[in-house]
Amino acid sequence: MILGIIAGILTMCGIIPQIYKAHKTQKTGDVSKGMLVVIMIGVFLWTVYGILKSDFPIIITNAIAFLLNSYMLFIVYKLELDD
Amino acid sequence: MILGIIAGILTMCGIIPQIYKAHKTQKTGDVSKGMLVVIMIGVFLWTVYGILKSDFPIIITNAIAFLLNSYMLFIVYKLELDD
Repeated sequence: MILGIIAGILTMCGIIPQIYKAHKTQKTGDVSKGMLVVIMIGVFLWTVYGILKSDFPIIITNAIAFLLNSYMLFIVYKLELDD
Repeated sequence: MILGIIAGILTMCGIIPQIYKAHKTQKTGDVSKGMLVVIMIGVFLWTVYGILKSDFPIIITNAIAFLLNSYMLFIVYKLELDD
């Protein structure tokens, strides 16, 4: 259903404005690493769930969300190390 | 399936460490409002999708996620006004 696909794309892309802001300001001190880790575990499990159910939209949106959130976590650690 | 429920609870609760951090530090300057708004629209649409499909786990996890993200956005605006 198209609504589920739009919803999935939005929740998947939610982290993109945060990545953009971090790149622009080079600051992530107020961003919770716990948030990123919990979301990463969650979308990883969603990906496994999608694989088990052979549900391609669930697999693809959550796998991409996992990569985006991993990248955001990488930025947070990188900026911490640079300080 | 239990895996989907665990995954749903984790992605729903992901924002809680961020809310906790914001309460502790009283700082949210590096948190993207765009992220919160995009996620809110996404989980709102997931809630509608769940209602249309009569899928209670989807409805409840996303409705709670909507409330948690709304609360985080409220904190961001409140701290901005306090400055």
